[in-house]
Amino acid sequence: MIRGRILGEVWATRKAPGLNGRRLLLVAVEGEDRALVAIDTLDASEGEAVMVSVGSGARNVLAPGPDNREILCDAAVSLIVDGEG
Amino acid sequence: MIRGRILGEVWATRKAPGLNGRRLLLVAVEGEDRALVAIDTLDASEGEAVMVSVGSGARNVLAPGPDNREILCDAAVSLIVDGEG
Amino acid sequence: MIRGRILGEVWATRKAPGLNGRRLLLVAVEGEDRALVAIDTLDASEGEAVMVSVGSGARNVLAPGPDNREILCDAAVSLIVDGEG
Amino acid sequence: MIRGRILGEVWATRKAPGLNGRRLLLVAVEGEDRALVAIDTLDASEGEAVMVSVGSGARNVLAPGPDNREILCDAAVSLIVDGEG
Amino acid sequence: MIRGRILGEVWATRKAPGLNGRRLLLVAVEGEDRALVAIDTLDASEGEAVMVSVGSGARNVLAPGPDNREILCDAAVSLIVDGEG
Repeated sequence: MIRGRILGEVWATRKAPGLNGRRLLLVAVEGEDRALVAIDTLDASEGEAVMVSVGSGARNVLAPGPDNREILCDAAVSLIVDGEG
Repeated sequence: MIRGRILGEVWATRKAPGLNGRRLLLVAVEGEDRALVAIDTLDASEGEAVMVSVGSGARNVLAPGPDNREILCDAAVSLIVDGEG
Repeated sequence: MIRGRILGEVWATRKAPGLNGRRLLLVAVEGEDRALVAIDTLDASEGEAVMVSVGSGARNVLAPGPDNREILCDAAVSLIVDGEG
Repeated sequence: MIRGRILGEVWATRKAPGLNGRRLLLVAVEGEDRALVAIDTLDASEGEAVMVSVGSGARNVLAPGPDNREILCDAAVSLIVDGEG
Repeated sequence: MIRGRILGEVWATRKAPGLNGRRLLLVAVEGEDRALVAIDTLDASEGEAVMVSVGSGARNVLAPGPDNREILCDAAVSLIVDGEG
């Protein structure tokens, strides 16, 4: 999983049908000068530290496999951090 | 998903048959000194901010799975950004 | 596999159901200015040098495939280093 | 797809059987200080600008799926650029 | 495939069962300040230039698919370079 911090939401009207109804969050990637966009089902808020799952892991956040290959999701918020150490 | 901005189109006559008829866009990757090429089905224009899906997510932009494994697509424009914040 | 070193554990109450009961470790990636989070089944300790498997390899650490596609895991500690050279 | 430029060919006698008979090209990755090796079926020449497909996309360059999972190919030249803009 | 150079072997007693009996090599990645660990079946030696396959390509080095999804392998040495140019 990738460590990141929520920057905010992304809005769009023109998008692939598979993204309809999804909450899309902009996530700053820790230690890198970039942000990614992940689907959120945990109701994460701006400023929160999160983990983002990718690949099959991302689809398994939305609906556990194996029959989830039709889900359009390459990154999903899978955890909101309470603490590390 | 990867954040990027449309730089323009890519033309080619010599290509894998699986790319025939596809609109190919050059996308500058936000925060990195590189560009990638993504298949576009949303009619994105030069200068627009977009999100690019990868892996199975890219194939699911073109045709939702699970029976889309024959689609030659490792990156697809999945969203044109209206706003962030 | 990715080389890394264990920094500590990650705690969370809000997370995807697929992560319930998993031990999550923060791993500093060798040679890069970032850390990732991996599922641990080997009881790795803080400071230990480890290898992290990704993709299908990560799921195969938790339960060998092919019927493991429902496992939410994109990174898993697969080895604790005794020596290199 | 990854943008690159052909640097030349790679020769080897000791290799995995799945690479026998493949033309292997060394490709400089645009915007990065590295090169990758891709399988070529388009007869690309040194100095040409190309796109390289990865993952399932790479296998689909060699033989469209879904029954191509036995093909040893994680990167394939999928397009030789005529123009961009 | 990723270009690299063999740095040496990795030893471990605590590891995932799927790695038992595997020869694990530490490989310096060309052009990057990092090393990865790959499974070796070609008997590569320290100092040799190699190519490393990833994803399904890595599993296909060990045993051609499609029935190899239970193999714990996300990177494998697929070629030892004789020459480039």
